[in-house]
Amino acid sequence: MAAKAPAPATRHIVSINDLSDHDIESIFEIAQAYLERFPDPNFPYRIRRSTNLASDFILASLFYEPSTRTRLSFESAMLRLGGDVITSADPLTSSAAKGESLADSVRVVGNYADVIVIRHPRDGAARLAAEYSPIPIINGGDGSHEHPTQTLCDIFTLKRKKKNLKRLKVAIAGDLKGSRTIHSFVYALARLGAHIVPMPAPGMELPAHVDRRLREEFHCTFGRQGSIGALYMTPEEPHQPALFAEPDFEFEYKRSGEKIAAVYVTRFQKERWAEKDQSYPKIDAKFLRESKYSQASVLHPLPRVGELDVSFDSDARAVYFEQAAYGVPIRMALISLMLGLEGKSFETFQGGFQKARWPLYDQPLGLGMRCCNPNCIVHDAMEGPYVRNKFHVVSIGDSVMLRCMYCENDVDRFVVASKKGKWYSADAGLLAKASTQKLKDFVFYQNDSDALDNGYHSRKPAAA
Amino acid sequence: MAAKAPAPATRHIVSINDLSDHDIESIFEIAQAYLERFPDPNFPYRIRRSTNLASDFILASLFYEPSTRTRLSFESAMLRLGGDVITSADPLTSSAAKGESLADSVRVVGNYADVIVIRHPRDGAARLAAEYSPIPIINGGDGSHEHPTQTLCDIFTLKRKKKNLKRLKVAIAGDLKGSRTIHSFVYALARLGAHIVPMPAPGMELPAHVDRRLREEFHCTFGRQGSIGALYMTPEEPHQPALFAEPDFEFEYKRSGEKIAAVYVTRFQKERWAEKDQSYPKIDAKFLRESKYSQASVLHPLPRVGELDVSFDSDARAVYFEQAAYGVPIRMALISLMLGLEGKSFETFQGGFQKARWPLYDQPLGLGMRCCNPNCIVHDAMEGPYVRNKFHVVSIGDSVMLRCMYCENDVDRFVVASKKGKWYSADAGLLAKASTQKLKDFVFYQNDSDALDNGYHSRKPAAA
Amino acid sequence: MAAKAPAPATRHIVSINDLSDHDIESIFEIAQAYLERFPDPNFPYRIRRSTNLASDFILASLFYEPSTRTRLSFESAMLRLGGDVITSADPLTSSAAKGESLADSVRVVGNYADVIVIRHPRDGAARLAAEYSPIPIINGGDGSHEHPTQTLCDIFTLKRKKKNLKRLKVAIAGDLKGSRTIHSFVYALARLGAHIVPMPAPGMELPAHVDRRLREEFHCTFGRQGSIGALYMTPEEPHQPALFAEPDFEFEYKRSGEKIAAVYVTRFQKERWAEKDQSYPKIDAKFLRESKYSQASVLHPLPRVGELDVSFDSDARAVYFEQAAYGVPIRMALISLMLGLEGKSFETFQGGFQKARWPLYDQPLGLGMRCCNPNCIVHDAMEGPYVRNKFHVVSIGDSVMLRCMYCENDVDRFVVASKKGKWYSADAGLLAKASTQKLKDFVFYQNDSDALDNGYHSRKPAAA
Repeated sequence: MAAKAPAPATRHIVSINDLSDHDIESIFEIAQAYLERFPDPNFPYRIRRSTNLASDFILASLFYEPSTRTRLSFESAMLRLGGDVITSADPLTSSAAKGESLADSVRVVGNYADVIVIRHPRDGAARLAAEYSPIPIINGGDGSHEHPTQTLCDIFTLKRKKKNLKRLKVAIAGDLKGSRTIHSFVYALARLGAHIVPMPAPGMELPAHVDRRLREEFHCTFGRQGSIGALYMTPEEPHQPALFAEPDFEFEYKRSGEKIAAVYVTRFQKERWAEKDQSYPKIDAKFLRESKYSQASVLHPLPRVGELDVSFDSDARAVYFEQAAYGVPIRMALISLMLGLEGKSFETFQGGFQKARWPLYDQPLGLGMRCCNPNCIVHDAMEGPYVRNKFHVVSIGDSVMLRCMYCENDVDRFVVASKKGKWYSADAGLLAKASTQKLKDFVFYQNDSDALDNGYHSRKPAAA
Repeated sequence: MAAKAPAPATRHIVSINDLSDHDIESIFEIAQAYLERFPDPNFPYRIRRSTNLASDFILASLFYEPSTRTRLSFESAMLRLGGDVITSADPLTSSAAKGESLADSVRVVGNYADVIVIRHPRDGAARLAAEYSPIPIINGGDGSHEHPTQTLCDIFTLKRKKKNLKRLKVAIAGDLKGSRTIHSFVYALARLGAHIVPMPAPGMELPAHVDRRLREEFHCTFGRQGSIGALYMTPEEPHQPALFAEPDFEFEYKRSGEKIAAVYVTRFQKERWAEKDQSYPKIDAKFLRESKYSQASVLHPLPRVGELDVSFDSDARAVYFEQAAYGVPIRMALISLMLGLEGKSFETFQGGFQKARWPLYDQPLGLGMRCCNPNCIVHDAMEGPYVRNKFHVVSIGDSVMLRCMYCENDVDRFVVASKKGKWYSADAGLLAKASTQKLKDFVFYQNDSDALDNGYHSRKPAAA
Repeated sequence: MAAKAPAPATRHIVSINDLSDHDIESIFEIAQAYLERFPDPNFPYRIRRSTNLASDFILASLFYEPSTRTRLSFESAMLRLGGDVITSADPLTSSAAKGESLADSVRVVGNYADVIVIRHPRDGAARLAAEYSPIPIINGGDGSHEHPTQTLCDIFTLKRKKKNLKRLKVAIAGDLKGSRTIHSFVYALARLGAHIVPMPAPGMELPAHVDRRLREEFHCTFGRQGSIGALYMTPEEPHQPALFAEPDFEFEYKRSGEKIAAVYVTRFQKERWAEKDQSYPKIDAKFLRESKYSQASVLHPLPRVGELDVSFDSDARAVYFEQAAYGVPIRMALISLMLGLEGKSFETFQGGFQKARWPLYDQPLGLGMRCCNPNCIVHDAMEGPYVRNKFHVVSIGDSVMLRCMYCENDVDRFVVASKKGKWYSADAGLLAKASTQKLKDFVFYQNDSDALDNGYHSRKPAAA
């Protein structure tokens, strides 16, 4: 039996932004230490050997979507730490097949294990799970929302290749819209001061809410988005919004000679799109022969399905299998911190998350508008009794938006109705300084007609 | 490596009635000891930490039907004991997909593990498995038959809330017909002297054979069955069979003021019914507001799919998540006893089960009648070569019934044919004192015409 | 934590012929030692207890086809050794569902584990996996190709019953064409000097390439193949090829009185045949009552689906459940050797395999002919970028054949084209002494017209 088990505070990792910069540093330090402690003579990025640090603990894998990499690397990490694993990898053979909600499932499995990794096809599912789970939840990918532990592997790989990411140009190519790995990744890049160069497949630009959040909250400058000609965003630099004046990357490269430090390729997320045979760019040795890519590390979260040519695998710039290998030490480090195995631990946050900067609107599902993202977990019929209409009220400058607490999609057009006054208004500005407490007095609707249908009258006539 | 492994005698747990009262006490004592030895400061009903008691042992999960709770809690229990687990959770990826019988599968897997938990859609499958397995079989749910380890969790939960169950009124609500958890549960309640108050959904009364067994073998008094107005059964009390005179519970409560001690809710077992959208009662805070429920613990084996309102979860009477949590210590205790890990062990029964009180009729599948329950394992084509027509011949008072050895459904109309005399008779009374040995001389048929078709003649004319 | 982990050289087991006779002896010695070290008092062929020899190691099960026996016995073996297991048992819930190639999957999983067992529906898949995996690959069955670890269990069982297999007559019955277990088994029998007596189901004779390889490379004499009347092959004996003069087994038995030492029965591999309701012989007690079978051990790799009668199970000659049980000690021994746990280890072969005796032709997939076996892994669209046209050029006597490096099917009709000379020729004899280096100058086509279409001209006119 192992040493006395500590009693770590519950802490959930749903978004990369649930981890502070210091947390990320701790994870990388511990991962590095594991790599040095259990070196494989043939593969410096592989873990060999196992410890018994986690011998008192069980990890539960709850996967509602296919996975090999994420699930097996989490399980390998837990086993290398000396812990045990219980797995539900197929929703058709779990109680989900009988119609059980995710909220109930995590409350039950929370009694059988010490930490849960969850993957789910709905955006925001991991946040819902964290609301109900008695033990820490790690998001192993929720719909198109986020995949924070993949990002930890990605950034760790980049840092081993490039040391400091500050001002490095990192191109992100492919399905920027449907890929949850991209969404976690760009937030991390922005926080680390890297310059993001989007190279979306046609019609697969970064979602508007991610784009805006990068600009407004992470202070990125944005280039023109386009499917041809990579454009770029620069975090923490003065914003020059002249629409056509923003230089594209080609222009910039010719001017400054600054090369692309990394290209991050993603596959077409066919399971998130209705149309299946969209044209999709292929990155190959020829593409990467251009001088601006001469020092670019090429990353891919894998699996790939044709968008990254196999013949490039032997190129020294191809680091995607190394990146996959880091899944084990990185996840070992994360689990160590979550379970308090290495003396170090995360900061303790009440409720499991760092407190959001924004006040929270919270009404029953039947009252007012729901999140507008049709894939958000709030629209899953099985979860109906467990979710509420929860929005962070985000005020930046003059604009006020609603950010779904689960899937983090933004709503920028809505009307505010006063429960007491029975009026409604399209002027979201009146929420600008409302506290969470004050927000209890309001209900949000998508538009005038919804508010009218629910018995509210327009504010102006009432005030008149 | 752990201490010397004991050599426990094979003992199977297919029905709750395979466990003596003393066995159940032992399980509860050991479960209680585990809870005290590995307390979770935040959740008194959760196990934290692991032992290495079972480090020499492997549990095999063979699940032919979906499961989360049962499988994961068994696996968690084995891992917390320091043992290992092998899992086959999906019949489509196991040798069952190639057409292998359950009987062969357990004979093979019996060489890979030390104890097997089995779940199967057919009634009586676990008993068949136990007939062939070289190692102990635990029934993790077989069709609509039984789910004995769920009942152990249920009774353990009740005892922690109510101490002594003697004469307590326990309501059972919902699908009393298709729910295997109910069937194991009512036998246990009857044995512990609780009063059962059935509240079936329309058309989902307790199966006739369970009802009769409760009355005749467990000495319950039965109220009128009905979908509206809960009626009750009283074990071990004088039987007053006047059909319309039996008081219903409402009447009883008004008279005596005795409250309901617990309400056990079950979901609609949609996988066991042809019609899928049957109306089904919903139990919610309003329902439970009546004074007779004011001290009722509310239990549910989970998953729930709407029949138990989520808003009730925060009520102090809601104990279903605690009940789910006990899955780990209870199953740890059961495994401990079966593997002889804690010094204590079960009684040893020849053949793995306590000897039935009734003689056994045993003929090849091709000879005479089969069990009349169409979902019984004897009707599974793959198991054809492995099953036989096996019935316990149950004599109570003047009546003689056949109880299928696998699924425990009763047959009360049949004819008895004499192999030697070549006659048959509808008078089952002639079996009243027949020994297992004597039964070899007889063959049973469903009716006269089957007996005639097989070359038997009616006894009377022959005697005439 | 366990003792210092050795660094075993990568060694793959794809075919039974990847194991030297000495390797097989080592496996059997270690398996025997485990059986003696951890005896089960009730079952002398079962392993009880566990060690901690492999506590630093992880086995990955990658199963793309259904399995119970192979997967669970490998996992049980690894757990009995004290190691850990990660499992992907359902292609529908793995990254294969997203379209990931096997080659990529093993490269990734190779970072999460220390040894991989793979099962796949395509012939040659395990060899492809071994080409890409950074860690040892064990073939757990690839299409109709081979299943070498099953053969180890089969031979181990036979040796415990019959000691020396030299000149013993071993009948193989049923689907000799589609059964991979048969293919590995006959090579092993031939190497051990046993006499093979084929008893194929109608139309299910040994594949031509296996038949020929047994004759020409393992020096077997072959009887007439037929569905009625078992015929036989004799390894290492003078070849008397007079077509109708070869005695059939009946005749032989009447003459010599030599009995059948073992009958190896296989099921109809319905997943490998388009027609599903083919007639298939059934082996039962009556069949085995003939005097020539009076001392025959009856083996079956299981599962069975009717071809071996259940009523025979209690016969002392039935050893198939014992055979299944040896899956654990045999696989423990194999893993021990592969991971270097017991001091002993396999020979080290560069590239993971014993060097083939034949030179290797190796061209890109787009150039020249592909393997003619439609189920070969080279025809799997997902693997397209990862496979090449690779053939061993097998010269025996005057004939030259191409043996696919993946699935080991032979091509005996093809034309040889010279890249430099731009001519082609049907005279394969010109390859008879070509080295692997020299083969780079050639391209193979299926026939004249393919060569012509690709711009080659017939050699003769060119020379004329």
